Amino acid sequence: MTEMVELIAAKRDGRRLSDEDVSWFVSAYSRGEIPDEQAAALLMAIFFRGLDRSELAAWTTAMVRSGRRLDLSRISRPTVDKHSSGGVGDKVSLVAAPIAAALGAAVPKLSGRALGHTGGTLDKLAAIPGFRTELAIDEMLDIVERVGCVICSAGGDLAPADKRLYDLRNATATVESLPLMASSIMSKKLAGGAGAIVLDVKVGSGAFLTDPDQARILARTMVDLGCDAGVPTAAVLTAMDAPLGRAAGNAVEVREALEVLRGGGPKDVIEVARAVSAQMLALAGIAADPDDAIASGAALRAFEAMVEAQGGDLGSLPEAPHRRTLPAPRSGVVGRIDARAV
Amino acid sequence: MTEMVELIAAKRDGRRLSDEDVSWFVSAYSRGEIPDEQAAALLMAIFFRGLDRSELAAWTTAMVRSGRRLDLSRISRPTVDKHSSGGVGDKVSLVAAPIAAALGAAVPKLSGRALGHTGGTLDKLAAIPGFRTELAIDEMLDIVERVGCVICSAGGDLAPADKRLYDLRNATATVESLPLMASSIMSKKLAGGAGAIVLDVKVGSGAFLTDPDQARILARTMVDLGCDAGVPTAAVLTAMDAPLGRAAGNAVEVREALEVLRGGGPKDVIEVARAVSAQMLALAGIAADPDDAIASGAALRAFEAMVEAQGGDLGSLPEAPHRRTLPAPRSGVVGRIDARAV
Repeated sequence: MTEMVELIAAKRDGRRLSDEDVSWFVSAYSRGEIPDEQAAALLMAIFFRGLDRSELAAWTTAMVRSGRRLDLSRISRPTVDKHSSGGVGDKVSLVAAPIAAALGAAVPKLSGRALGHTGGTLDKLAAIPGFRTELAIDEMLDIVERVGCVICSAGGDLAPADKRLYDLRNATATVESLPLMASSIMSKKLAGGAGAIVLDVKVGSGAFLTDPDQARILARTMVDLGCDAGVPTAAVLTAMDAPLGRAAGNAVEVREALEVLRGGGPKDVIEVARAVSAQMLALAGIAADPDDAIASGAALRAFEAMVEAQGGDLGSLPEAPHRRTLPAPRSGVVGRIDARAV
Repeated sequence: MTEMVELIAAKRDGRRLSDEDVSWFVSAYSRGEIPDEQAAALLMAIFFRGLDRSELAAWTTAMVRSGRRLDLSRISRPTVDKHSSGGVGDKVSLVAAPIAAALGAAVPKLSGRALGHTGGTLDKLAAIPGFRTELAIDEMLDIVERVGCVICSAGGDLAPADKRLYDLRNATATVESLPLMASSIMSKKLAGGAGAIVLDVKVGSGAFLTDPDQARILARTMVDLGCDAGVPTAAVLTAMDAPLGRAAGNAVEVREALEVLRGGGPKDVIEVARAVSAQMLALAGIAADPDDAIASGAALRAFEAMVEAQGGDLGSLPEAPHRRTLPAPRSGVVGRIDARAV
């Protein structure tokens, strides 16, 4: 492991790692060929020294290559994926994906569960009786092609190196490294195979990143990573100093998303969903106004069709047994980072 | 292991670790209760953030407490140990220990073997036919009491945490952390139980530390550590841009040490041995001139008595089968850090 000690020492001393070194490390570590203690030392050195744009592109590419990349070539419409860095009350995917689908994009959204106290989008959808979050690839592609959107679980075979590295970061206080965060998120999104990516980066006292400058750097880094990989990527910075909307929970968030799709709902959810879906449409090359999809009812129909295709019965959505009303200020959009030419 | 993640994050973010946190980490790690990857992340964070004087004292104390500390109370004379950071041709211990012994100090010197390309003092002594480097504690104490000096192997039960941490540092490119170097050296010396410690810190192109400022910081840190632990400690900074003396090898270095003890030998070896033994005598509270021990033959007799007590036969010291003469400039003393009140 002399080679690995030299690689750690190089990063420790602020020297650039070559693309070959980075690729070697990520693939060897994901195969279990590098001891955790050496990988941990490298991650901490990266926390202090960072990864430059070229190192980070090589790192992320190697993460994507550690597993399979979905082939979406049979989808006839332009594909676009969406990611949120997460926060309480964030049901934006449930609104933005159907809007983009209703206006001509295909949204094959891979999502997560159990993201700490906020819950993931899949936890919310799983509150709909019968809703299936685990789909085989063929079924997923069929639904996207037919309905325009699908929201299901990302398989463990997408960027498996990320899972190993994330567990190690979690145990070694290196989760907070911005380049490692960026590569973790973007490797999974790039492996998802969509033709474009829109990122909703939360910032504020309730977000993972509380400092707007840090959030902006993370967003910029991820936009660069996507564009460097040939996938048009843009970011929206949105406030997370208070829960988004008025509902925080699973079934109650699905209900609030339905309200917004029916033309009502809280202003901040509308504002963020509009900004995110507008970016999704723009990157998909579709000139259309998100509000039209709401006004026409097409977005609501796309959502209902997706839930039905995934086995869910919206009619029997349960009532939350416990409800409490608490005062909170409103959230909203605070910034935007557009894609650049790729 | 949440506690450990918080401890890593604290050091990563430049916060002080409490004495309790430091003691807990060192003792838990030495008992195998902390995963290597978490310890590695902490070591790399320490590389970047350092350890302040109080953290370092707690760290070193915990290392000493991970094993036994030799009890030298039955030695009637003042005890003093000596350590060198090592370099080619360094046979200073073979001269300085007998000088100090001849003038009234007791030198129970614990030494190492196979220290990379330079060899350790024990490798040199082992070239003497019959010389025993492994001694039981009772025999070691008997020899020191009778002869005034002994040079033997440090048992694995002295600061065992150091061995585990050193192996981890070696695998994770964190050997180069000055506070970790200082605690590694001083924990073993303090566990040796001597009443005073003199450090010969090498500096120059052939030393582990090539930068004089770094060497001075390391020396100062170790002197502070010893004094903080109640053991008067001083350091001599000596040049290692060229081999010390004219002999580099095992038997040839024993011969050169004998030359110096007989009043001859290379000027640089004489100069360094004189400076080191003068400090040893000063810390032992003995007002005496090292040169007198050479001139009277008492130092030579102490060396011969020690070798005989350890089973060695100086008369059958082998000739090196291969000798080559190479030009080299001379080394010598470049600085000194005195002990302060303890």
